[in-house]
Amino acid sequence: MAKVKKAPRPKAQTPKGFRDYFGHEVRERTEMLSKIAGVYHRYGFEALESSAVETVEALGKFLPDVDRPNEGVFAWQDEDDTWMALRYDLTAPLARVYAEHRNDLPLPYRRFAMGPVWRNEKPGPGRYRQFYQCDADTVGAPSVAADAEICAMLADTLEEVGIPRGDYLIRVNNRKVLNGVLQAMGVTEEGQAANVLRTIDKFDKVGESGVRELLGKGRLDASGAYIDGVGLAPEQAEPVLAFLTSKGATNDETLANLRNAVGEAPVGAEGVDELAEIADLLAAQGYGPDRIVIDPSVVRGLGYYTGPVFEAELTFEILDEKGRKRQFGSVAGGGRYDDLVKRFTGQVVPATGVSIGVDRLLAALREKGRIVGSETGPVVVTVMDRDRMADYQAMVAELRQADIDPKDPSKGKIRAEVYLGNPKNFGNQLKYADKRNSPVAIIEGGDEKARGVVQIKDLILGAKIAENASLEEWKERPSQYEVARGDLVAKVREILEGQT
Amino acid sequence: MAKVKKAPRPKAQTPKGFRDYFGHEVRERTEMLSKIAGVYHRYGFEALESSAVETVEALGKFLPDVDRPNEGVFAWQDEDDTWMALRYDLTAPLARVYAEHRNDLPLPYRRFAMGPVWRNEKPGPGRYRQFYQCDADTVGAPSVAADAEICAMLADTLEEVGIPRGDYLIRVNNRKVLNGVLQAMGVTEEGQAANVLRTIDKFDKVGESGVRELLGKGRLDASGAYIDGVGLAPEQAEPVLAFLTSKGATNDETLANLRNAVGEAPVGAEGVDELAEIADLLAAQGYGPDRIVIDPSVVRGLGYYTGPVFEAELTFEILDEKGRKRQFGSVAGGGRYDDLVKRFTGQVVPATGVSIGVDRLLAALREKGRIVGSETGPVVVTVMDRDRMADYQAMVAELRQADIDPKDPSKGKIRAEVYLGNPKNFGNQLKYADKRNSPVAIIEGGDEKARGVVQIKDLILGAKIAENASLEEWKERPSQYEVARGDLVAKVREILEGQT
Repeated sequence: MAKVKKAPRPKAQTPKGFRDYFGHEVRERTEMLSKIAGVYHRYGFEALESSAVETVEALGKFLPDVDRPNEGVFAWQDEDDTWMALRYDLTAPLARVYAEHRNDLPLPYRRFAMGPVWRNEKPGPGRYRQFYQCDADTVGAPSVAADAEICAMLADTLEEVGIPRGDYLIRVNNRKVLNGVLQAMGVTEEGQAANVLRTIDKFDKVGESGVRELLGKGRLDASGAYIDGVGLAPEQAEPVLAFLTSKGATNDETLANLRNAVGEAPVGAEGVDELAEIADLLAAQGYGPDRIVIDPSVVRGLGYYTGPVFEAELTFEILDEKGRKRQFGSVAGGGRYDDLVKRFTGQVVPATGVSIGVDRLLAALREKGRIVGSETGPVVVTVMDRDRMADYQAMVAELRQADIDPKDPSKGKIRAEVYLGNPKNFGNQLKYADKRNSPVAIIEGGDEKARGVVQIKDLILGAKIAENASLEEWKERPSQYEVARGDLVAKVREILEGQT
Repeated sequence: MAKVKKAPRPKAQTPKGFRDYFGHEVRERTEMLSKIAGVYHRYGFEALESSAVETVEALGKFLPDVDRPNEGVFAWQDEDDTWMALRYDLTAPLARVYAEHRNDLPLPYRRFAMGPVWRNEKPGPGRYRQFYQCDADTVGAPSVAADAEICAMLADTLEEVGIPRGDYLIRVNNRKVLNGVLQAMGVTEEGQAANVLRTIDKFDKVGESGVRELLGKGRLDASGAYIDGVGLAPEQAEPVLAFLTSKGATNDETLANLRNAVGEAPVGAEGVDELAEIADLLAAQGYGPDRIVIDPSVVRGLGYYTGPVFEAELTFEILDEKGRKRQFGSVAGGGRYDDLVKRFTGQVVPATGVSIGVDRLLAALREKGRIVGSETGPVVVTVMDRDRMADYQAMVAELRQADIDPKDPSKGKIRAEVYLGNPKNFGNQLKYADKRNSPVAIIEGGDEKARGVVQIKDLILGAKIAENASLEEWKERPSQYEVARGDLVAKVREILEGQT
């Protein structure tokens, strides 16, 4: 063979904006998603795992703030010139799947989906181009009973993964109410409506008087710049201000305020009726406003939604980067969107659904101490005599076949491994056990073998003693035990039990 | 806004060679992978989920039969012109991850990975461009104890997912033995060696005499075409024939035959020693040749591997497409590869691992009746009075909060849903329940509501009766029960229990 010029070594790194997940990170997410899937399944939702790759044509241009079809996604051309792309969410693929398989799927079709999605965006700190989504949607159910069901399921889901009642609130609003408010204001022109919506979004920042100014002539902002107003007459602003301040002490009060805000607008009244129905359905199932509440301040990229919208907020406080207290905030949201399937079939198919922010919810569980963010490693059997590897392998086999707790097999079997690196330096073996966060190390040298015993080191206790104890205490509280070889499993069990 | 010309409707279909997975398909795979992860974890392996996207540079050109770097993969250019691609397996990413994070990872590093991989190949029947892999590898362990461990773990894994002992066999060979055979033959030239390997691969088809002819002058094949031979002298063929026929009744016999085949070649002797050590280590842990056996016929794309190679075969018989009996065949394989990390770091890092064919193993479990390939749906609460949706929602909430078996909460809670389609046509509701494979339907019309009762239909029994019973029997064996509303949960439990 001709000699090929040596290529330079490739760089060992992920592409920009991508990352790897190790050990407990994978396990914690898998366990959380498994609990969520359990709740969804109990509600009659079926799993769906659609292809990660879609045609650009099927994905469409539903990515927010993006106009060109393959902007914002990772796309390439197939050999037959078809443009393909990685999915950017789980909703666009659902629309494609439903349109493709609608004759075989039940109607309504309840499905959940969990998996990575990809966004071709500028990466930044904590901002990745591949991340997990976890969605549940009901396709083909026009009634708001479907929306109420999603909200109830979301509450059950949060409690199931470990967010206690009182630490979350699901807030529900309705896009139709806002449309009614616009009608009541006499705003019909699209551009003007968009300006009103943008102003509503600023309510949190500028308050009631600021919104009033911005809807009218305009306003001098904090930086001294003058912001042009929408140019409405003062009385036109009244419905939107009534809307923005409509949250009452009870759902009934809020609904009455909203009815007032939308006035005679039929779409607005319909929206309020729907919210009332959702509140009734949830009350019948025992979900009071301490868990799911009507709240007009929920906005959620309104362009996309056509009816009820909802958002799950975690209400417990955390410290932000600057040490200030703030609420943890949103971990899930969704709503009704009735036009996605229509792209494919020409027929309107009503749909409603929710998406959980997987990384956000995991972070919340870490905050609440529900997941510890680390994991105990395996028992490590060290190698004293390279020639007796078979003996050590027999030990780990014995440990792995033993229940951690013989009275409760559901706790699983003992996790164990033999040291497979170069055994020459024993210190390296203990360093390895330390790096693995191992609870116990087993030692059997030639002397032990001859006497039929093994040494068992309690590494957790050993570390504690090393950290806190005086030399005297150290000597008095041994963390290493010599037991008969036949008692290996029993002693390891005893130590593991003492550590938990 | 300017009126935009209406685009034609997009096609609702996956790109060629991609597919979706529905309901029980997702659940069965998830459950199988969860069991496998349990075994791997118990062996001290840690989960790793690497990025699905890698730089083409990092992936390299390790895809078999592919020379150009981005041939065989789905690749595209990032905005900074870096070529990126979807991973085509889980081994190339492991090498990148290990090289990138080697200072933080324990040495040896045992990891498992499960997830989709993508191949830019021509799709065909049953041949997809996205499929699951499930790998376990040990990086940085030079000793064959690591290979033996992988084989033992593979046996445990197969039993854990439901392949009983006796229905599988893990066969182990060693690339070094084959190198020894080539040395013993006096074959040193690369092209000639490759020709010999190709001939070995034909042993199953052409038998001993065929191999002899192909190694010599050549052979007339079944179609009448003359196949040129490798051109070796007759005595040169002896070692390879000794190798091909070396499988004995016991491991010891096989090892003795192999020693004979490799003669004086040092690399061959080393290979046989390693196989002997693997057999010893496995015997010490109780894995006899009924489960893991030395077998020189294992080849497995030898170019890639540098030491022991192994393959798990399922030995039970199935019927092929033409109704002929054949063994189920291979579901997993792997071996030692010592050069992958070197690409990045310049240093040789020994590694060994196994990859399970996820779809093959699922198919095997289906064959063995371990997974049924379908699933009982939820209890369906039908909607008789549209206005009483709250009543029906309360029923499903009650069912979902109830344990299937109060004496065994581990069985989970009752799966239930309310019908959310248009309730006007009651027949459609029962058709829906049928499509959902529901075990039970609940009916509460105005009359039942007034009398404080509900109707409960046993749909499984109903279907059985409809299929088999005469009209007389039909009348005598009702599959519908009227119970007090308060007894709803108890009666549903009773029916579900009777169905299992």
